[in-house]
Amino acid sequence: MAREPVEIFEQLCDSTREVVMLRSLEGLLDWDERTQLPPAGGEYRADQVAYVAGLVHQKQTAPEVGEWLDELADSPLAADSTSDHGSTIRLLKRDYEKKTCLPQSLVEELARTSVLGQQVWASARRENDFSSFQPILEKTVTLKRQESAAHGSSETPYDPLLDDYEPGESTKNIARVLGELRDALVPLVQAISESSFSPDVSLLERDYPVAAQESFGRLAAEAIGFDFQAGRLDVSIHPFCAGLGPGDVRLTTRYDPNKFNDAFFSILHEAGHGIYDQGLPRQHYGLPLGKDVSMGIHESQSRLWENLVGRSRAFWEHFFPQAQTVFPTALGDVNGDNFYSAINDVRPSLIRVDADEVTYNLHILIRFELELALIEDQLQVADLPDAWNEKYQHYLGIDPPTDTEGVLQDIHWGAGLFGYFPTYALGNLYASQFFAQAEKDLGDLSADFRRGEFSRLREWLNENIHQHGRRYTPAELAERITGAPLTHEALLGHLTDKYSAIYGF
Amino acid sequence: MAREPVEIFEQLCDSTREVVMLRSLEGLLDWDERTQLPPAGGEYRADQVAYVAGLVHQKQTAPEVGEWLDELADSPLAADSTSDHGSTIRLLKRDYEKKTCLPQSLVEELARTSVLGQQVWASARRENDFSSFQPILEKTVTLKRQESAAHGSSETPYDPLLDDYEPGESTKNIARVLGELRDALVPLVQAISESSFSPDVSLLERDYPVAAQESFGRLAAEAIGFDFQAGRLDVSIHPFCAGLGPGDVRLTTRYDPNKFNDAFFSILHEAGHGIYDQGLPRQHYGLPLGKDVSMGIHESQSRLWENLVGRSRAFWEHFFPQAQTVFPTALGDVNGDNFYSAINDVRPSLIRVDADEVTYNLHILIRFELELALIEDQLQVADLPDAWNEKYQHYLGIDPPTDTEGVLQDIHWGAGLFGYFPTYALGNLYASQFFAQAEKDLGDLSADFRRGEFSRLREWLNENIHQHGRRYTPAELAERITGAPLTHEALLGHLTDKYSAIYGF
Repeated sequence: MAREPVEIFEQLCDSTREVVMLRSLEGLLDWDERTQLPPAGGEYRADQVAYVAGLVHQKQTAPEVGEWLDELADSPLAADSTSDHGSTIRLLKRDYEKKTCLPQSLVEELARTSVLGQQVWASARRENDFSSFQPILEKTVTLKRQESAAHGSSETPYDPLLDDYEPGESTKNIARVLGELRDALVPLVQAISESSFSPDVSLLERDYPVAAQESFGRLAAEAIGFDFQAGRLDVSIHPFCAGLGPGDVRLTTRYDPNKFNDAFFSILHEAGHGIYDQGLPRQHYGLPLGKDVSMGIHESQSRLWENLVGRSRAFWEHFFPQAQTVFPTALGDVNGDNFYSAINDVRPSLIRVDADEVTYNLHILIRFELELALIEDQLQVADLPDAWNEKYQHYLGIDPPTDTEGVLQDIHWGAGLFGYFPTYALGNLYASQFFAQAEKDLGDLSADFRRGEFSRLREWLNENIHQHGRRYTPAELAERITGAPLTHEALLGHLTDKYSAIYGF
Repeated sequence: MAREPVEIFEQLCDSTREVVMLRSLEGLLDWDERTQLPPAGGEYRADQVAYVAGLVHQKQTAPEVGEWLDELADSPLAADSTSDHGSTIRLLKRDYEKKTCLPQSLVEELARTSVLGQQVWASARRENDFSSFQPILEKTVTLKRQESAAHGSSETPYDPLLDDYEPGESTKNIARVLGELRDALVPLVQAISESSFSPDVSLLERDYPVAAQESFGRLAAEAIGFDFQAGRLDVSIHPFCAGLGPGDVRLTTRYDPNKFNDAFFSILHEAGHGIYDQGLPRQHYGLPLGKDVSMGIHESQSRLWENLVGRSRAFWEHFFPQAQTVFPTALGDVNGDNFYSAINDVRPSLIRVDADEVTYNLHILIRFELELALIEDQLQVADLPDAWNEKYQHYLGIDPPTDTEGVLQDIHWGAGLFGYFPTYALGNLYASQFFAQAEKDLGDLSADFRRGEFSRLREWLNENIHQHGRRYTPAELAERITGAPLTHEALLGHLTDKYSAIYGF
């Protein structure tokens, strides 16, 4: 007896929720490993992670899922692809096809090469020895090209890789937008470098006791709307945000008692991710409509709170007097304007993760252009260090003295993450585009920030972005919210206005 | 083609290790819930726990496990039931039969009743209203009697329940030993009560800053041999020890800034559990030979370090000067003898978990006698509060003023844990029995303790107990180590010697 489509749909949803529950276990194992696990527990933890990953893979590629999706494809439930049912079926079909189109042997080879690649990378970086990394990176590029080909034909082999992180986005489109951004940023960075003004950043390297940093960071995260009843803040080597389940979103940071910026802005950044996770519709948890859109959109939320809010003058008109109370030794004698320009210091530098709001995008541009060329076979791995150094000279006017501080600085390529880097820049672009629209819709927000009031902005983000889950692609979302496609203009306008005022040009 | 027994054996072991891995996930979910989980994450956590418990149940009761065990039963591997192979098969068979002999409907009913029973208990305790707890407790007793019957005939229906926690132990045997203990303890407690000496316990309620308590507790735990490279110490409402995997054993405690005893002795207690877990043979992890023997033996390890070591005079000859440095305000002017008698204050009290080393056993006796009578249908639930109060008067000379401070104080019965209580007393009995033997084998240990040296004792415990995993039953282990069965004499001797010296009788 043929089953009702609604019955099949429920079975599909149950199975999907089960996968998400297993992934929440993976998330907890990972969070715990990075914040709690005793050193001697590492070996068994690796076994646990591999075991749960195996269960996830088994569940999400099970043949019956494909059968359910086929049965539902022509059912009335799928007829309207924008309805709740239709969206869910469409997105689960997309996910299933992405997961099952790769031959098992390739999946395993990619996984093995990723683990090995990260180990080899770590040692090559430590030893400043690119040549020891070259063979495994060559293999990785070959495998990623095979992976791309397995997804079927595309305009460029980079498209299917990008699509993993930014669904529906095209290489051609982002190459155009990021290219426009690059062409405008290079002269902007140059104008800043040539300015006679230079912020006094030494005041950010004074005595900032860790406990005070933590309580001040919590205060700010809570003020912008991160809910600590449904979340935590802990310490890890690299800051991250882990959405472990509804009501359980965990941020991490790291503290240096002589650096204000590191912990504070990473807390705001991760809280931005966390506010997105906490704002996803709980009733759809475990299904596409309860999930985030993409890496780029997720990053837009973190960057928006970190940079457009957290590095704004209005934000510090509210928070600076409190910071002076919390850090009397460091900030008691500091003028608010000097603090504001210090946290907005711009200067070309070698290391991406330490870069400022302006030059950060050029670091990403360089990586995107290079990895695109690798995947398109326009650049050989052997030539990568020279190409890297040339671009750093060209875009940022600096020469990496070593590969450790150059082409070996990021873990991504060793881990096989091709297509991931551009989403960092997309995050910055979307953040500015959304923020500009929010100010169009809500009027000037700086008056809110000056009062320590962030709920109008947060609710706007929730209504326009968070509540939709994965219903729209990033491009659809941008169009829907701002009436325009992805553009470099909002970010460029923001950076030009802000930094011409600070640096006086 | 018939498979080789060794092949079947490996399959059985793989499957068992998989169950243990799933249980390690359960352990992490539980530890995280009790130490980290944000309040709003509770609902989803319950779903995660239920899901993993379902996977565990499915795996460990799978029919193929029974088939493998049947195939192995007559194989040469099982011929010597004391060999590694033989022990493993024997113990896995035991576990499988215990898990599968209960009808599924009863298992589910017990689980439901346990969850509900704990909720009703919590409210009844809060409201001091035994009558609201009575119906669900009656149902629980009925179900536990059914559970017992499902295990087949036994001398008393209490036997199969006890066997869940103390494999191979008989009700008759522990009733005899605990009865002898009771008959000797009641006059001992009376003698102490009648003594003119009363320790000044107020010195333990001075200013003990939490951070100092934590670092002092860590120091002591590390000194007795808990390995913090393979473990942690955190905070939870009720102290516990979670062995989450090889190299990952986590202790918890709770701090009160005006109580020295609570945190310090619970850290030693949990560290005792932890040292056992850390001492189990890693090569057998996930299999019976890598697991602890029983609740009673586990408790013997925690009690040994907490009481026989941690409350000894020699221990404090080493640690008291350090305590004075760590807690100068509280202990700067305190005499070591007064401190020693304060931490060994004995007085009849209402609440088990706060009881001293002597009266604690009588609290357990009362619970054991009452739950035995309930399970044997010699006592009706309706008559339980009166029976409870009568025994408190009879054994400890005190009258519980309310049921909240009386029969409603423990969660165990509401949770369906019948057969569990006596293992606390067995822990004390075994601890003394093992400790006396260790001193026979190694000579006077107090000289070691005075030097802050605990490795000879720890290694003795490892060699005699930890390294064997579950190879021997508790009774076999006692016989093997001490040449004698379980007896009340070692504990009674220890308590009489120690407390007659302190209280001068």
